[in-house]
Amino acid sequence: MVTYSDILDASVRIAPYIHTTPVLTCRSINEMAGCSLYFKCENFQKIGAFKIRGGMNATLLLSAEARSKGVATHSSGNHAQAIAYAARTLGVPAYIVMPDQSPRVKVEAVRGYGGQVTFCASTQAARESTLQQIVDATGAAFIHPYDNDYVIAGQGTAAREMIEQVSVKLDAVVAPVGGGGLMSGTSLSTRALLPGARIYAAEPEGAADAFLSMQAGRVVPADYVDTIADGLRTTLSQRTFDILQAHIEQVLPVSEAEIKAALRLVYERMKIVAEPSCVVPLAAVLRNRPLFAGQNVGIILTGGNVDLSEMASLFQAGA
Amino acid sequence: MVTYSDILDASVRIAPYIHTTPVLTCRSINEMAGCSLYFKCENFQKIGAFKIRGGMNATLLLSAEARSKGVATHSSGNHAQAIAYAARTLGVPAYIVMPDQSPRVKVEAVRGYGGQVTFCASTQAARESTLQQIVDATGAAFIHPYDNDYVIAGQGTAAREMIEQVSVKLDAVVAPVGGGGLMSGTSLSTRALLPGARIYAAEPEGAADAFLSMQAGRVVPADYVDTIADGLRTTLSQRTFDILQAHIEQVLPVSEAEIKAALRLVYERMKIVAEPSCVVPLAAVLRNRPLFAGQNVGIILTGGNVDLSEMASLFQAGA
Repeated sequence: MVTYSDILDASVRIAPYIHTTPVLTCRSINEMAGCSLYFKCENFQKIGAFKIRGGMNATLLLSAEARSKGVATHSSGNHAQAIAYAARTLGVPAYIVMPDQSPRVKVEAVRGYGGQVTFCASTQAARESTLQQIVDATGAAFIHPYDNDYVIAGQGTAAREMIEQVSVKLDAVVAPVGGGGLMSGTSLSTRALLPGARIYAAEPEGAADAFLSMQAGRVVPADYVDTIADGLRTTLSQRTFDILQAHIEQVLPVSEAEIKAALRLVYERMKIVAEPSCVVPLAAVLRNRPLFAGQNVGIILTGGNVDLSEMASLFQAGA
Repeated sequence: MVTYSDILDASVRIAPYIHTTPVLTCRSINEMAGCSLYFKCENFQKIGAFKIRGGMNATLLLSAEARSKGVATHSSGNHAQAIAYAARTLGVPAYIVMPDQSPRVKVEAVRGYGGQVTFCASTQAARESTLQQIVDATGAAFIHPYDNDYVIAGQGTAAREMIEQVSVKLDAVVAPVGGGGLMSGTSLSTRALLPGARIYAAEPEGAADAFLSMQAGRVVPADYVDTIADGLRTTLSQRTFDILQAHIEQVLPVSEAEIKAALRLVYERMKIVAEPSCVVPLAAVLRNRPLFAGQNVGIILTGGNVDLSEMASLFQAGA
């Protein structure tokens, strides 16, 4: 099982390939939230998202022989870019299976990093069978977006960095939860460095599998999945569920309207470009002010890879 | 006449009231530009733009008695917010004359800072007569958006900071020119700190008065003014013309299409929210690559106060 020591090793291993992203604060958002928020800005990370941390760590940990056959994954989003970028950086091929509805900007980015894209239907079964065919044909190593210890260890380096960068002691850390890779790594880093801090997972009501799973005490898929936070539509694995169950205080669900309002705040007040997925923790803090009143709260802002015309539709619709 | 010593004094005077904004770099934009760009991010400044530097400096330099009667200005944009914010910070009233076509987000921001807004027709004559009535009635001190030595000295602190922050020696500095307040301050700081550096003013072709004025050797208004860079529609004064003529290498005009392309780059690659006016220098560098090839170039990114639905229209129109 992955531990904080793996995260420390990952930090050293990936350091030459990633940015140390800044932690930003915003007085007007603090006033609205009634607490002091510290935003770890992974939208400024290489490839525009934290996913390069896990993708690079897992790719670096392959043996030279395994790596030479390439790496493969299925992802509609930032993990695809991460694997393509990691592979190109290390001079090996990347095979990326993407649902045929993937955002144009993300497909272009994967290709821009030299990834070989294969489209499939947007079901889990289609993703997996298409990927298996590619792995069989090429011998490439499959790097799962989150159900992988090395990926989890890589993602955990973001919270580690954040905690070391801020000058205050954080009372709580909030990250978004989709498949649980970032949330698992964030939990392990926070628990190791700040044993007393509370750890929250923020999740769209429209993809509430983590909320339901914590209630049930076992992995439960959501009945329906419908959210603009496209990075969070995935489902926990047993591996990530176990880590979350051990460490997190609570899953905080938020509505689509709350996500849109938080998104507008981040653009208008912080002047940064963010994905809908990445403002879910801010939306959760704003919805649950009493939980955080007067405290220092760390938030992982996960990425900034948006399709500007989609974002435009959102803001024109009065988000 | 304003000198670098006034800028140094302004730096100390306004320090308690402003942010030291970061200088960002972006490898993919550097690759496109063929040079190393250093972006001084005044979109992260208090009020979302550099204008607070000049507005705060000028307000602080009023005598206590003069200040107690309040400050007044006419501005469609960030200078209005700057004066309102400076006045509120110092506990005095702010009277702001705004054209009735001003962007909603800017009017709301001025009111949010406690400014008392009076609308007028969007002609220079209407602005000036409305302002004069207010000054006569209240005794408030008029702080011109750029034709004011204290304002120029304040704006010059941005370039001073940038030059001190970057670890390399800049070969050139590029800032946008509207009325010339920022450009004048930038010229004085750059000339004082980097005597050998070239100084460029970037200007929309649709508001080319600085270009025409430099050619003519005297202040010449543009025949027509039509640009999305709404912060740059104003005209040089004799004061700012004289400073520019003494120091700048050249005015670099850019087209509307070039401004829109640069805007998209800044959102997509740097993940930051920027006003059309503030990407005009980047557009100028991209249009004039041979001028900057292989060099270190400092750029003032002036502000990030956009109306998100207007920005949305722009990106949906395929900017």
